[in-house]
Amino acid sequence: MADASGPGVRVAVAGASGYAGGEVLRLLLGHPAHRSGRLEIGALTAGSNAGSLLGELQPHLLPLADRVLAETTPEALAGHDVVFLGLPHGQSAAIARALPESTVIIDCGADFRLTDAAAWEKYYRTPHAGSWPYGLPELPGGREALRGATRIAVPGCYPTVSSLALAPAVAAGIVEPTVHVVAVSGTSGAGRKLDVGLLGSEVMGSARAYGIAGAHRHTPEIAQNLTAAAGTDVTVSFTPVLAPMARGILATCTAPVRVDAAQARAVYEKAYADEPFVHLLPEGVLPQTGSVLGSNAVTLQVAVDAAAGLLVVVGAIDNLTKGTAGAAVQSMNLALGFDETAGLSTVGVAP
Amino acid sequence: MADASGPGVRVAVAGASGYAGGEVLRLLLGHPAHRSGRLEIGALTAGSNAGSLLGELQPHLLPLADRVLAETTPEALAGHDVVFLGLPHGQSAAIARALPESTVIIDCGADFRLTDAAAWEKYYRTPHAGSWPYGLPELPGGREALRGATRIAVPGCYPTVSSLALAPAVAAGIVEPTVHVVAVSGTSGAGRKLDVGLLGSEVMGSARAYGIAGAHRHTPEIAQNLTAAAGTDVTVSFTPVLAPMARGILATCTAPVRVDAAQARAVYEKAYADEPFVHLLPEGVLPQTGSVLGSNAVTLQVAVDAAAGLLVVVGAIDNLTKGTAGAAVQSMNLALGFDETAGLSTVGVAP
Amino acid sequence: MADASGPGVRVAVAGASGYAGGEVLRLLLGHPAHRSGRLEIGALTAGSNAGSLLGELQPHLLPLADRVLAETTPEALAGHDVVFLGLPHGQSAAIARALPESTVIIDCGADFRLTDAAAWEKYYRTPHAGSWPYGLPELPGGREALRGATRIAVPGCYPTVSSLALAPAVAAGIVEPTVHVVAVSGTSGAGRKLDVGLLGSEVMGSARAYGIAGAHRHTPEIAQNLTAAAGTDVTVSFTPVLAPMARGILATCTAPVRVDAAQARAVYEKAYADEPFVHLLPEGVLPQTGSVLGSNAVTLQVAVDAAAGLLVVVGAIDNLTKGTAGAAVQSMNLALGFDETAGLSTVGVAP
Amino acid sequence: MADASGPGVRVAVAGASGYAGGEVLRLLLGHPAHRSGRLEIGALTAGSNAGSLLGELQPHLLPLADRVLAETTPEALAGHDVVFLGLPHGQSAAIARALPESTVIIDCGADFRLTDAAAWEKYYRTPHAGSWPYGLPELPGGREALRGATRIAVPGCYPTVSSLALAPAVAAGIVEPTVHVVAVSGTSGAGRKLDVGLLGSEVMGSARAYGIAGAHRHTPEIAQNLTAAAGTDVTVSFTPVLAPMARGILATCTAPVRVDAAQARAVYEKAYADEPFVHLLPEGVLPQTGSVLGSNAVTLQVAVDAAAGLLVVVGAIDNLTKGTAGAAVQSMNLALGFDETAGLSTVGVAP
Repeated sequence: MADASGPGVRVAVAGASGYAGGEVLRLLLGHPAHRSGRLEIGALTAGSNAGSLLGELQPHLLPLADRVLAETTPEALAGHDVVFLGLPHGQSAAIARALPESTVIIDCGADFRLTDAAAWEKYYRTPHAGSWPYGLPELPGGREALRGATRIAVPGCYPTVSSLALAPAVAAGIVEPTVHVVAVSGTSGAGRKLDVGLLGSEVMGSARAYGIAGAHRHTPEIAQNLTAAAGTDVTVSFTPVLAPMARGILATCTAPVRVDAAQARAVYEKAYADEPFVHLLPEGVLPQTGSVLGSNAVTLQVAVDAAAGLLVVVGAIDNLTKGTAGAAVQSMNLALGFDETAGLSTVGVAP
Repeated sequence: MADASGPGVRVAVAGASGYAGGEVLRLLLGHPAHRSGRLEIGALTAGSNAGSLLGELQPHLLPLADRVLAETTPEALAGHDVVFLGLPHGQSAAIARALPESTVIIDCGADFRLTDAAAWEKYYRTPHAGSWPYGLPELPGGREALRGATRIAVPGCYPTVSSLALAPAVAAGIVEPTVHVVAVSGTSGAGRKLDVGLLGSEVMGSARAYGIAGAHRHTPEIAQNLTAAAGTDVTVSFTPVLAPMARGILATCTAPVRVDAAQARAVYEKAYADEPFVHLLPEGVLPQTGSVLGSNAVTLQVAVDAAAGLLVVVGAIDNLTKGTAGAAVQSMNLALGFDETAGLSTVGVAP
Repeated sequence: MADASGPGVRVAVAGASGYAGGEVLRLLLGHPAHRSGRLEIGALTAGSNAGSLLGELQPHLLPLADRVLAETTPEALAGHDVVFLGLPHGQSAAIARALPESTVIIDCGADFRLTDAAAWEKYYRTPHAGSWPYGLPELPGGREALRGATRIAVPGCYPTVSSLALAPAVAAGIVEPTVHVVAVSGTSGAGRKLDVGLLGSEVMGSARAYGIAGAHRHTPEIAQNLTAAAGTDVTVSFTPVLAPMARGILATCTAPVRVDAAQARAVYEKAYADEPFVHLLPEGVLPQTGSVLGSNAVTLQVAVDAAAGLLVVVGAIDNLTKGTAGAAVQSMNLALGFDETAGLSTVGVAP
Repeated sequence: MADASGPGVRVAVAGASGYAGGEVLRLLLGHPAHRSGRLEIGALTAGSNAGSLLGELQPHLLPLADRVLAETTPEALAGHDVVFLGLPHGQSAAIARALPESTVIIDCGADFRLTDAAAWEKYYRTPHAGSWPYGLPELPGGREALRGATRIAVPGCYPTVSSLALAPAVAAGIVEPTVHVVAVSGTSGAGRKLDVGLLGSEVMGSARAYGIAGAHRHTPEIAQNLTAAAGTDVTVSFTPVLAPMARGILATCTAPVRVDAAQARAVYEKAYADEPFVHLLPEGVLPQTGSVLGSNAVTLQVAVDAAAGLLVVVGAIDNLTKGTAGAAVQSMNLALGFDETAGLSTVGVAP
């Protein structure tokens, strides 16, 4: 397989006309390996948009505006060292089987995220394709699994922030293993999908919940991550809320707490002391999604509600960057031996 | 005191340059008693904006554009049958003392909402002024307390939707008395306040939590309402989240549940069967704030998360209408003997 | 035909699942004739949404939530005194032919707006269906044409504000007949259309022009109105700009001016002195769309740029209210002999 | 003075708590000279915010969160090779006089933009401080004036896009020298200013014009640039419009045209063929501000409205990047001899 010390890396992006694919390309264009000529952006493919110019579909990617989208086939993706997949559910396995084992395949979709076939089948209603190393290096043991990996499942956006917000607490045993997550998301999390409910006229000026009462597919993924961190079953209540913004997730996470505020804070300080992208904010400062827009940062605040007996952790990410494409590039960096933070920033675009 | 069958009602609005005062005026302008000439809009007062034309400050109220704002004093408010107060905390008591007992005073502020002096002092850090009949007729016993009342405390915006979302469940004993509320609000809930964090450049494209871990002043008010409904102490975990929209609150409320989904739904169907403004949506349809913009409706959905053992209730209101000024007008209608729904609509302005 | 003094009016809305149809219904629900039981909302029809509950598609119209949408056919629309059409271009003529002459048909679409068949065919590329009385009573002679009319073409949204902003000047001859209009619109003007460019993720945080250089179909309609007002050919440069808001149009209109600011203002004061919906704002106060949201008002400001030798008129409307459905209801009121302002407000929903 | 080949560049930012200062810092943090250790971010100063942590005021600049803001004084800014000024009007001259001639001072404010003292005094009502080399390298002769300069006036945001949209046409003489500009801007252009009209509740969902009829201070700056390009006086009609978005300007520019569409396009193709940041989009593709968010790109489209006899040029920029801080960094690059594009991108953050 390709690695960072080799002669150059050739990268393909399948699903280049979608939001995940577009964000992968945005980050690759700013990657130091691309700027130095050691990372080449090869095939860009799409489904129904094949044949179009990228400039018509992703007008913000000016340097690639003249690229023509090929159809997403194993042939188009062959001959690359790294292939990013931003495809509808269920299409990744066939592509992966058709490419060499040595190709680094980084799947922004859900197909290989869940280890439990029953959970997969319950939520996705299709046969389980298997599971791949999980692209969230900040989870316990997460980083090691990604170094040199050639198949990587990028986490879901809600599970990214929810898991990072709660894993230290469940791992340290400072909370009961029953957690609540209510997460407010921008609309790009739903993808570039023609759906009346996603029209600008419908979403501007309005907030709405969806997939309540455990119905959202990210519920078992959050439970999987927290159960692994805790070493015991963690029950998850998850409610996603759509807010009128294009990007960003703000997650409010609670769990019955066994320690005081100072002890809780110490657990988080220790857990993330050396993490380049996870920032515990100073006491009293609360995360906001606008501050991490376009960045790979995760900002967290931790508090204890003594009257209610709860740990309260609030986290913010950009769902397309750390929540999808940033995690994908971070995983690529680990897989190839690049600096883990290459091409990724903790500086948001604000206001 | 004035009543609906009398010769005409003269109404003053203190704080007419703020969002609450402006919304009271919007509703009064559309009130059938105003259209038929039986409700007259008298003094409009303000603090630092006294002397200005209303048209400069509330350009959406075209029929009142030429009105000059007087200073908020008891003298300016005297001689009215109804006085709406939209004032900063701590100013209502002095105004109320200076006006006759027979004047119907409807306070959109917090001063007279809490019955527990200790809770008041803990959260507001000023002496407790007392408590008035609470302007949420849909709570058990709420309507009776408002008929003929001459002092009315309009509920807070978050407590309105949270209490209506959870009161039937705690009253019926179908949940444990430990509830979680995470509520997403538009920015007008913070008032027309010069604060960098409320600038359009800061709020657009960003979501942020604030007042977490029980710090928000609406926490004891929610607990007061639910404890009254339950007949036993209810513990409340409350997190408010600011979203990039001017109006609306979307509250996600959960509590450990003792019944199944059908039983839970039956409790809500019964509780709100005859309420003109509270609508339990058809199964599977979720509330959205955009649908109740400008209306006095509360839309609810009820579900059970069997895996997590929780009742999940989602509710939407317009924080300025049902959450403030609509409740104030509804309370006026009850106090004066008007039709309770007069001047209030369940039709939102959408998209 | 039905009239306001008769026994009751039965109204149908074709295209009830779209934005125009939904706004017509919102206004009809608040119409005094509906509240007094003298206006009945009859058939609601749709195209691909036939068979659905209105509550699923227009959740803001709670009082009509249980209505089932019929298919848009002449049969479904027969037996009504008034029929509002909110249909795709080209469908109105066939419906109109199939309904009695005495039925008041109010077409929110473009089919019968243009009198010039050549202009129609150039811009719409279909045969010209003819022209109907034009539902903009504030234009010279406009009101008279609508009293008792049984076929009415509701103006386009951009032509409404642009024509009202410039007609007094061209009619009075205080400007040269070459006008520029750049108008910023909310996204609902594009209708409830599945188009990637209208997704919330694409429109939030972004402004874009479209239909530049005379390509937009409202260009000949503006020219028609202004030419009629001027009595001489008026050349129109029109650029529409899409902004991240659901509703509202803010039009900046200029033309070479022959008088000074005071004279120009006097022309507008005189033209609109008795108009209930057109408001010339006090000097120096500028229109904003947020102030007319949900209202039927048109707010205008007039200035002279002496250095550039131009009259500058800025106007604001709600594109769905005065720009579509408000004009439709105002036209119905005139056609049936109701008070022209019945069911229409000059009070906006703000903030 | 410092230059790119020297031992390292030390940079200060005055006004680091404002939007211009924050954006300069965002770009400097991503500048290759900073990443390689050859550009050091030194003093960060502020006015009323002196003493605060940058992390409290600019939470998106995580790598600088612990920096304490000093007061803006010549002493605090001394000892730096480059000083960026993001100060209120009128403060730059005194700072500049107190710093050595060799210090590269790049003023994001207006003080040194206008060459005509009379125009300055008419619009700013203070004495004229003088004029500095103008930081818009894409104007004729613009680049040469900046190489090695030690005093640079960064253009206003509206003049940047308006001038680039029209300069080729006036320079080539293909239009009459009377131009119209209507430009829609996000709210950050107004700065981080406590103003009721800039509150999120007021700006969301609303568009409004301001500074119409030549009243906006950017009018003479546009005229200055176009007059210089044309070699003859150019008359400018300019209307700014505020739209509900944080960033971005979309300018619609027209002028009476003397050539056909192909000839006009050829003029623009030639003018910008070698410019790294100015992109003439393919025919029919229209600029949108969302595509240039956070980028230094200017996207343009050119058309001819034959019926109206006008050239229509639409341009989009990010007002904070190319419209302010990006131009400042581009100017620094030219002044110091860095690659002109260093630290600047043509890749926007979208959606």
